[in-house]
Amino acid sequence: MSYRMVGYLLGVILSIEAALLLVPMLTALLYGESLMPFVFTILILLAVSVPALFLKPKESRFYARDGMVCVAGAWILLSAFGALPFVFSGAIPSYVDALFETVSGFTTTGATILSEIESLPRGILFWRSFTHWIGGMGVLVFMLALLPSVGGQAIHLLRAETTGPQKGKLVPKMKQSAMILYAIYFALSVLMTVLLLCTGMPLYDSVVTTFATAGTGGFSVLNDSIAGYNNPAAEWIIGCFMILFGVNFNLYFFILLRRFKEVLKNQELRVYLLICGVATLAVAWNVRNLFTSAGSCLRTAFFQVASIISTTGFSTVNYDLWPDLSKTIILFLMVVGSCAGSTAGGLKISRVILMIKNLGRELKHLIRPNSVNVVRMDGEAVPTETQRRVSNYVCMYVTLITVSVLLISFEGFGFETHFTSVLTCINNVGPGLGAVGPAENFGDFSVFSKILLSLNMLVGRLEILPMLIFFTPWVWKKA
Amino acid sequence: MSYRMVGYLLGVILSIEAALLLVPMLTALLYGESLMPFVFTILILLAVSVPALFLKPKESRFYARDGMVCVAGAWILLSAFGALPFVFSGAIPSYVDALFETVSGFTTTGATILSEIESLPRGILFWRSFTHWIGGMGVLVFMLALLPSVGGQAIHLLRAETTGPQKGKLVPKMKQSAMILYAIYFALSVLMTVLLLCTGMPLYDSVVTTFATAGTGGFSVLNDSIAGYNNPAAEWIIGCFMILFGVNFNLYFFILLRRFKEVLKNQELRVYLLICGVATLAVAWNVRNLFTSAGSCLRTAFFQVASIISTTGFSTVNYDLWPDLSKTIILFLMVVGSCAGSTAGGLKISRVILMIKNLGRELKHLIRPNSVNVVRMDGEAVPTETQRRVSNYVCMYVTLITVSVLLISFEGFGFETHFTSVLTCINNVGPGLGAVGPAENFGDFSVFSKILLSLNMLVGRLEILPMLIFFTPWVWKKA
Repeated sequence: MSYRMVGYLLGVILSIEAALLLVPMLTALLYGESLMPFVFTILILLAVSVPALFLKPKESRFYARDGMVCVAGAWILLSAFGALPFVFSGAIPSYVDALFETVSGFTTTGATILSEIESLPRGILFWRSFTHWIGGMGVLVFMLALLPSVGGQAIHLLRAETTGPQKGKLVPKMKQSAMILYAIYFALSVLMTVLLLCTGMPLYDSVVTTFATAGTGGFSVLNDSIAGYNNPAAEWIIGCFMILFGVNFNLYFFILLRRFKEVLKNQELRVYLLICGVATLAVAWNVRNLFTSAGSCLRTAFFQVASIISTTGFSTVNYDLWPDLSKTIILFLMVVGSCAGSTAGGLKISRVILMIKNLGRELKHLIRPNSVNVVRMDGEAVPTETQRRVSNYVCMYVTLITVSVLLISFEGFGFETHFTSVLTCINNVGPGLGAVGPAENFGDFSVFSKILLSLNMLVGRLEILPMLIFFTPWVWKKA
Repeated sequence: MSYRMVGYLLGVILSIEAALLLVPMLTALLYGESLMPFVFTILILLAVSVPALFLKPKESRFYARDGMVCVAGAWILLSAFGALPFVFSGAIPSYVDALFETVSGFTTTGATILSEIESLPRGILFWRSFTHWIGGMGVLVFMLALLPSVGGQAIHLLRAETTGPQKGKLVPKMKQSAMILYAIYFALSVLMTVLLLCTGMPLYDSVVTTFATAGTGGFSVLNDSIAGYNNPAAEWIIGCFMILFGVNFNLYFFILLRRFKEVLKNQELRVYLLICGVATLAVAWNVRNLFTSAGSCLRTAFFQVASIISTTGFSTVNYDLWPDLSKTIILFLMVVGSCAGSTAGGLKISRVILMIKNLGRELKHLIRPNSVNVVRMDGEAVPTETQRRVSNYVCMYVTLITVSVLLISFEGFGFETHFTSVLTCINNVGPGLGAVGPAENFGDFSVFSKILLSLNMLVGRLEILPMLIFFTPWVWKKA
């Protein structure tokens, strides 16, 4: 472990957080609210991060495991310090509650412990939504920078960007790629805000709703989430942008390069849109008796499907009151999630496709042992190494869910609540079913469960391995 | 596909079923009940099976896929014909219900569609329980004969028996091994029946309870399952034998050979007993307020843990009324199941151990890419091929559960019922939670769901692949 390097990088990240806190502080200033919660937090952040900046090592040897520890540490520390404004302002007096809320923000989950949101200061709510936007941005770099180096399928998905293992070329190329991704993220966000303004939504609400959508987070500044706006046009816009932010960002880059053919042929995108379409129609058919007009039925079904598959978690309706089939479809969408290389959570469509292709290959091999079966994705052969990682990922995912559900059962809210609370947190969605349904919140859970669910959110957001490595004691031994 | 060979083998199996039906027929004779349901079924079976016996091919080339198709076909046909006595006797008038019950019997699941059991003819109930015992026996041969040839981890577990790929030596050796397994199965069954008789249980009840325990099935001839006997000594005996029938039968063979050291050092056995112990104590602690004496609390907790981990599904209490923690532990035990090479279902302990070791290796490899990490089990290195199969098995298992839960959600019994009905069927346990709890039954499900759950039972019993291959259309093409 390169302690100096990890310490230095975490210092850089925390000083960036201090800078970012100026934005909600400015908002608080505009609304004439107290600036103290932000000032104190920024001072604490600087007191911690500035000394760390002097740790910068001369030599920069950096292994994959160091990167993993760094990323896990960054998300944990960002949340640990990011929770302070909530505590200082008195908006969320308990630190564990504030930590849960901030982890939920930075992991772009959107699960909340708050039952009364609208009475909180505007600056604090701005920070709460802003964490989604920062988290979404962080995930995009994380995918770009770290996953390829550990041979996940991100290699496969980002091959267009990263040309190979030549170190000299890789770093500037990656920086450039990151800049392009940020530009796309920023442009989509501005576009969405403008469109929401056109529907008559106030500027503040348009901005924070965009933050939550871009990060596929789901925090809203209204108690009734998006339903509170009663604005069908905005619902369509938010629905479409949730889908858009669940698309692999490489494809937007391809569109900029006018490589439309590759976009249209992208298998993950096709399956993603197919699932969205089928799920929307199935849900709309299943809930048709709850609506008076076909339009509102279809709009609500589309919005809810988009919200869950993109793992955003906004709601325009309490889907916990829907028939069982729709609720199960919602749980299914939670698990599947959206495309790799987006800000969404879940298993990711490409992983599910690869897993199923892999199982098909296994079956074929068994039936005709002498046949050669290669798994292909977008026309290219998938290395067996990648296939193995996908299977192992699913095993880890299932194991973590099983252990978490066992541990959270001390609560006594019933199986449906326990199971879906873990599922919604590990997939970074937000609401679940039962006592964590869209009309409920996570406030009633014990401190133990809140920490457990926070870990679930972090584990899901960072695709499991970084968090596991972070909590493996012998990683911390000096080499 | 070797059609002649598969047809011939299925003919042999169906004629054996005809012979086995003489046992319940004899029981019906003793109790003065109608013999006609059995006579008709036997005649139909002979009419189908005898012509098939003439299909015997001269050459006996037989591939793994033929074996798979044969095993899947055998279980399906045994159930399809085995359901007839229930229909002919009027005990279960609907054929789909009777099929569900018989599949549940032969797969040693024990899920029932009957709400009133005690009023049925004794001969019919004998057949119902007997299917468990036959199914358990079938599973033992299946594991011995087929799994090694497809390179599952059964190779690893049965290496003691099967010396290698020399065809000449393998077949007689396997026949001998099968005979030893049967002898152990038979001896344990006789011992259990005698012990139950000693507790004052009537002969008929002792025999059918032994059938259901030996096959880890769970059908009882009382409406209240084992609770109906109100016999604490019998509960302890049944509890212990459920655990014993969940142990890898190789270990009994080792005991006969006086290789005690290998038994004591067997990792799967140790983990199995550890899980049993920890789960019993956790459940007993969790439900302590529901009992007046520590003895009955511990006995009930032990019985229920043994019943679920061995995937038998007997009950002495309605655990659906227990606190959430205990119910979640029960679901966990359902999934884990018992040892490979036993009559129990579930994922199997050795598979879970291998999966976790495999994930540990993956993590180690990521942290220290240059280190050599070999997964070991009982001191021997596990081939990467086996590791891959284990991961893929878990992926298939999870995929099938997900799809089944989606499909069964048309019912509208609530998520807990849907999820646990699939879980209990695919793991061959019997009861679940909610509307399929130990005090309930599967009678209210639609025809579609009964067939779906029957498929789940078959898929789980045959370790997924044979059933998948059976339903792959192009397997049926001539080579």
